Amino acid sequence: MNALGRHLLLELKGCDKEVLNNLSFLKSIMLAAAEEAGATVLGESFHQFEPHGVSGVVIIAESHLFMHTWPEYGYAAVDIFTCGDSVKPEKAAEMLIRKLGAESHSAIELQRGLLEIEQDVSR
Amino acid sequence: MNALGRHLLLELKGCDKEVLNNLSFLKSIMLAAAEEAGATVLGESFHQFEPHGVSGVVIIAESHLFMHTWPEYGYAAVDIFTCGDSVKPEKAAEMLIRKLGAESHSAIELQRGLLEIEQDVSR
Repeated sequence: MNALGRHLLLELKGCDKEVLNNLSFLKSIMLAAAEEAGATVLGESFHQFEPHGVSGVVIIAESHLFMHTWPEYGYAAVDIFTCGDSVKPEKAAEMLIRKLGAESHSAIELQRGLLEIEQDVSR
Repeated sequence: MNALGRHLLLELKGCDKEVLNNLSFLKSIMLAAAEEAGATVLGESFHQFEPHGVSGVVIIAESHLFMHTWPEYGYAAVDIFTCGDSVKPEKAAEMLIRKLGAESHSAIELQRGLLEIEQDVSR
């Protein structure tokens, strides 16, 4: 069986609270993380919440990166979903963990689209 | 411990291949699913791939819905990430499973942001 996608789910705790509420900084590091992974960015959308918190997505040709932040708890949920062998999601993960100043984190990787097929996973 | 977010991950197999490549239809059902769940839509972004496949996100005030489709395999990966008690992600899931004509599916739910805090999860 082959998987069509790799889905990396990060739980980032003890992050810098100022950083977690800074939309422009978060957007810049998400785009930089996509580039670091070798992904092709197709678009992005970020939203600032009141009184605090940011949600943002970067759509890449190889799927997506997502972030939701709760500055009040120093917590961020980050997902990196990629297809194909050309991208290295772990590089994006390492950058985001570092840039958010996470004191602790956990990461799990799920295989998505486990199908009984021979496929070209170039997309 | 309380979780800040609910993350529903769906694997949809044996879906209608024509539907999985129809961006405008997929956008309409993703928006309808967000509404069905009681979510507040903030924005959306969809991309058509060549020769086939669609990626799309709907950003909601309560987090996001994501879909990646592989029409060639009749497969779609759908994520529904929500915060707060006011939204019912399972309603969105039921609608999408039905609208995509999935012959089989699996669903898992992860709790994101399990923190040792007393919090207001209204966001």
